[in-house]
Amino acid sequence: MNEKSAAMVLSGCGHMDGTEIREAVLALLALEKHKVKVKFFAPDIEQKEVINHITKDALAGEKRNVLLEAARIARGDIEDLKKAKVFDMLVIPGGYGAAKNLSNFAVSQENVSILPELQNLILEFFKAKKPIGAICISPAVLVAALKGHAHDVEVTIGDDSDGLIEKLGGRHIKCSAHQSAADSKHKIFSCPAYMQDGDVYQIYLGIENMIESMLKC
Amino acid sequence: MNEKSAAMVLSGCGHMDGTEIREAVLALLALEKHKVKVKFFAPDIEQKEVINHITKDALAGEKRNVLLEAARIARGDIEDLKKAKVFDMLVIPGGYGAAKNLSNFAVSQENVSILPELQNLILEFFKAKKPIGAICISPAVLVAALKGHAHDVEVTIGDDSDGLIEKLGGRHIKCSAHQSAADSKHKIFSCPAYMQDGDVYQIYLGIENMIESMLKC
Repeated sequence: MNEKSAAMVLSGCGHMDGTEIREAVLALLALEKHKVKVKFFAPDIEQKEVINHITKDALAGEKRNVLLEAARIARGDIEDLKKAKVFDMLVIPGGYGAAKNLSNFAVSQENVSILPELQNLILEFFKAKKPIGAICISPAVLVAALKGHAHDVEVTIGDDSDGLIEKLGGRHIKCSAHQSAADSKHKIFSCPAYMQDGDVYQIYLGIENMIESMLKC
Repeated sequence: MNEKSAAMVLSGCGHMDGTEIREAVLALLALEKHKVKVKFFAPDIEQKEVINHITKDALAGEKRNVLLEAARIARGDIEDLKKAKVFDMLVIPGGYGAAKNLSNFAVSQENVSILPELQNLILEFFKAKKPIGAICISPAVLVAALKGHAHDVEVTIGDDSDGLIEKLGGRHIKCSAHQSAADSKHKIFSCPAYMQDGDVYQIYLGIENMIESMLKC
């Protein structure tokens, strides 16, 4: 049996301005538990903002680079997102970094634009029929990136009481923290993680459930 | 059955200048899986340095606060280490932050000094006979903090080929990534994590093994 490989796309380090740290680590754990080798990627761009994670205020004048901050989670073993190629699967953890650095979701939900290197990578995986897994708010990024390429993609971001996924042209599946949604037709997988209440173990179960569905497909 | 509680002490966010992120998240996972409620603490001090986690170089002139960076792992739910009190157990993940911010290990292994608020907290837990668990390089900090209060404390930092633990007055137990060491007499528990080679799942097994030993004692 060949060892499988996954690309994981990070957007910084910390849920208020980058990747949700726990989601990235728990996805890594679920992947390595199932013998999947993980390669990290992040865009070499400036963070949209730097947030004080206690007060939740933006730190005026402070600048950080998404790739360098993501390297903290990746323990330095990370490359520019532009260099990413098609692996056996793609995983995108959540955190506001997905809405601020990987896309403009935090600013606009009407005219959504996705970072070109991520948009290209998502389309490459999709066209190669490789499974894509998105966690937390990232499924919304995924639906937006696939607009015009896939119809009625089914994902979860937990409850989606605002109807965000429908607005983007997708279908929303309600899930609790320990659950995940599988759109087998499009090979799109998702779980709500910190979009729902749940302790870290519940969130791990949801992420592991998603990873296992990706491996089975 | 009463719910147990743990204090976890962080030293920043990123293994080169703060807490090893994965060790903190995996310890949190193991604790919450076993229904232990975790409260995070970190010192409200400036980091000794800020490291570029790709090049491993120090970023001259850049300053970060240990408590604010640790808040990224804690999702904002963290307090000044000075406010920590005795919970059912104490857990200290590793990363160079333990050697740079919580102690002066990175500078001197001869005249070791521990951050006073951490030294006090460790002694309070020790005197209250509550289990203390240390991961990666943190067991060395623990042995140094207990000098004069406990003899021949047994810990692991993996191989310890330099004899650091013996030099500090402790006894070293060799462990692989998936193992942990238990000094039941002193209620001191440790595991090597990233001091040893091992994938994230092996490291999780070592940390979970340590947490389970702490819960049993």
